[in-house]
Amino acid sequence: MADLERSFKQDLVAQLHHVAAAGDTGRLRTLLSRSPSLINATAQNGWTALMYGARNGHFEVVQILLEGGCDRSIVNKSRQTALDIAKFWGYKHIANLLANVKGGERPLPLPNEVKELENYFGTTLLDRRSDKRTDSNWLSKKQTHPSSVYILFSNLSPLVTLAGGTESSQQPEVKLCRLRHEDVQQFLAPAGEVTLIFLGVELRLPTEPRGAPGRAAPGEEHEDGLTAWFALSIEPPSAEKFKQTHEDAYFLHPPMPALLQLPEKEAGVVAQARSILAWHSRYQFCPTCGSATKIEDGGYKKTCLKEDCSSLRGVHNTSYPRVDPVVIMLVIHPDGNHCLLGRQKRFPPGMFTCLAGFVEPGETIEDAVRREVEEEAGVQVGHVQYVSCQPWPMPSSLMIGCLAVAVSTEIKVDKNEIEDARWFTREQVVDVIIKGNRRLFFVPPSRAIAHQLIKHWIGMNANL
Amino acid sequence: MADLERSFKQDLVAQLHHVAAAGDTGRLRTLLSRSPSLINATAQNGWTALMYGARNGHFEVVQILLEGGCDRSIVNKSRQTALDIAKFWGYKHIANLLANVKGGERPLPLPNEVKELENYFGTTLLDRRSDKRTDSNWLSKKQTHPSSVYILFSNLSPLVTLAGGTESSQQPEVKLCRLRHEDVQQFLAPAGEVTLIFLGVELRLPTEPRGAPGRAAPGEEHEDGLTAWFALSIEPPSAEKFKQTHEDAYFLHPPMPALLQLPEKEAGVVAQARSILAWHSRYQFCPTCGSATKIEDGGYKKTCLKEDCSSLRGVHNTSYPRVDPVVIMLVIHPDGNHCLLGRQKRFPPGMFTCLAGFVEPGETIEDAVRREVEEEAGVQVGHVQYVSCQPWPMPSSLMIGCLAVAVSTEIKVDKNEIEDARWFTREQVVDVIIKGNRRLFFVPPSRAIAHQLIKHWIGMNANL
Repeated sequence: MADLERSFKQDLVAQLHHVAAAGDTGRLRTLLSRSPSLINATAQNGWTALMYGARNGHFEVVQILLEGGCDRSIVNKSRQTALDIAKFWGYKHIANLLANVKGGERPLPLPNEVKELENYFGTTLLDRRSDKRTDSNWLSKKQTHPSSVYILFSNLSPLVTLAGGTESSQQPEVKLCRLRHEDVQQFLAPAGEVTLIFLGVELRLPTEPRGAPGRAAPGEEHEDGLTAWFALSIEPPSAEKFKQTHEDAYFLHPPMPALLQLPEKEAGVVAQARSILAWHSRYQFCPTCGSATKIEDGGYKKTCLKEDCSSLRGVHNTSYPRVDPVVIMLVIHPDGNHCLLGRQKRFPPGMFTCLAGFVEPGETIEDAVRREVEEEAGVQVGHVQYVSCQPWPMPSSLMIGCLAVAVSTEIKVDKNEIEDARWFTREQVVDVIIKGNRRLFFVPPSRAIAHQLIKHWIGMNANL
Repeated sequence: MADLERSFKQDLVAQLHHVAAAGDTGRLRTLLSRSPSLINATAQNGWTALMYGARNGHFEVVQILLEGGCDRSIVNKSRQTALDIAKFWGYKHIANLLANVKGGERPLPLPNEVKELENYFGTTLLDRRSDKRTDSNWLSKKQTHPSSVYILFSNLSPLVTLAGGTESSQQPEVKLCRLRHEDVQQFLAPAGEVTLIFLGVELRLPTEPRGAPGRAAPGEEHEDGLTAWFALSIEPPSAEKFKQTHEDAYFLHPPMPALLQLPEKEAGVVAQARSILAWHSRYQFCPTCGSATKIEDGGYKKTCLKEDCSSLRGVHNTSYPRVDPVVIMLVIHPDGNHCLLGRQKRFPPGMFTCLAGFVEPGETIEDAVRREVEEEAGVQVGHVQYVSCQPWPMPSSLMIGCLAVAVSTEIKVDKNEIEDARWFTREQVVDVIIKGNRRLFFVPPSRAIAHQLIKHWIGMNANL
């Protein structure tokens, strides 16, 4: 196209955008009938006539352009569609028009409808109801209430049983033993030897009205209809005794990888309970003065018993459960076609996974990613993007999952930290993750966030 | 456009895409000369001819389309440009062609060149060099080295001085006092009363060769050319004595908001040092057994002195500094035009800010956002998006900043948690953040992540 023609076309586009922004439907129709090919033309900022109409609330302009067959999926340089723009400016009637399903087209996914990536240990059955933790009256009523659920721990391992699997075709499923007050009463009597944590109340389904009763046993009175859950940690001798009278129950030990057998939502409950119980078992004394402590707030607070301890003046983190943020990252090669995976000596032979490490005090998530990758593999990282996170109750980590783009490629492994690190091609990774071919190497199971990060990277480009 | 015409157009587009994908430059030129308006036409999946050419590595196809004036900024339904696709498939020559700056157009920003949002306390002068923490030989040499820098703390407040400002027009700037070994020698002699932390070595500018010496005093020997930084915490009487001989120096107390006066990169160093020092002052005893502890690894580890303590078997978080993850979120009204801000009783009158709260054990970042917003303001949140984070050394939080989209609008304030929460319109927020009008309300200063989250929300739509 010659310069003159190009400039003429640009003038026409500017005119079209102007009349769309101004709401001049008469001139809009004239321009479109003369130059129908300009309907999707964009300005320097990536805006189309449709966007200008939507921005300025001109319903009829948007209607004419849609009838003219314009492409509503085009995004501007800020990655917004006309629909995003209409919603932003509060023109709901135009947004409805733009979102309308027509001719078999699906509505565009909106940013606020994006499905979150949910990892194992990250979903739950419970609403924590932290407001009830200080309501000792309510708590003690719920402790003895026949609808309340107790889950039992010994040595930080939950009590489980095998459910289903009676028919030969069906695999038995590991499930938490949901006990009642009467089942655990014997352990609650002499306080001190046990740790009791209030976990929350059962989440209601969205269809259930707020006031509806929970799983009420007939004839029983439910003050608020809430089914409370508690975690109870008992000493090994008591655990032994309990098992003798409950033959089908056992404690999931060692926790890894055994905990990964639980149903997703029970895993979230166990993540919460195990992290808090681990905190109690490790933090029995006041770190500020070394004195004994007492448990408060349904298990979420420890208070120093020494009257003049400085931890009692003001709010101190010493009194609250610890959560350790960890970064875990899939590092992408600058060519976009390889990712960096490493392995530790203690791993089973052939297993490789994402690099990871604790966030240090005074450090951002992004810098922790860069530091760990450089420390462990000698590779430098530029851009870092958060993807999803996973609570990891060994004992109480928050795994913050990121993609990281390398800006150097030479690997220099720090043998004190890891045993090996390598670039794997996209094809090799697809082979392992999608096709399940373990010949070359394998990665952690799908319930580990590392697996999901790798899968996310593959999936990001699935339609290419 | 009649159905027949539409279908005819679709056929042409499919043909065009086919020849672009196949690399048939002859037919491509013919089709384009007949129907130049189809050059940017997209398929159902949002793909253009340019994308198909780039996907299949056809350099000449891409060249012809670019010369024909096609729009390289269009993105497909996976939000990828032709350039993204070329890079993904490793066609570097095509990627170079697509990224080439021509006719005054700027190259498209690539995902891996996205500038991170950097918050105050989140940038630093130092490379932590955690590998040196266990190198006691190196550490002790650096401690007495004349090039090493010491920053002094008393009561968790850093020693600063006023720099510049001699000319009347210039504001004096608060800066860290960078002391030498000889300045602090007196405090180091009787160990036990002081806490010494190795912070890292000065980052080199990218232009400096790796082996270049640091800020070498003439005639001094630099074994590795690295300038080490240490944080030294002294007791109040020593601090008093020091100030008497250094009249222009003072301790920034109370830390908030005084710390916000530091230059950005010194703030990052203070964030690191203050968090670790606060950990030492609060965690002096082994929480597992209540015994005394000793400091190791340059200040990054505490070990129980009782020989049979279980914290000495295996790795335990009790021995490592604590970092508390906190979610802080700007909640956006479902209409996109309001945001939710709240205030606590202790705030100065008129100040509103983002809601925030600690992440609990076994909880995801996204669920912590939802829980806190519902607990504090009674508003339900759907989609949550991570934006950026900020280390906050009071004493050692990691503020994880998110945008959150509300799915309900009625506010029900929990007076135990906050004093007030309200929806503010976009216009009101722009008035405060951009125009500095504090009539209606005001928000925290720009060095707080809350301010940046609010600004991010405004800026996300700045070109609308």
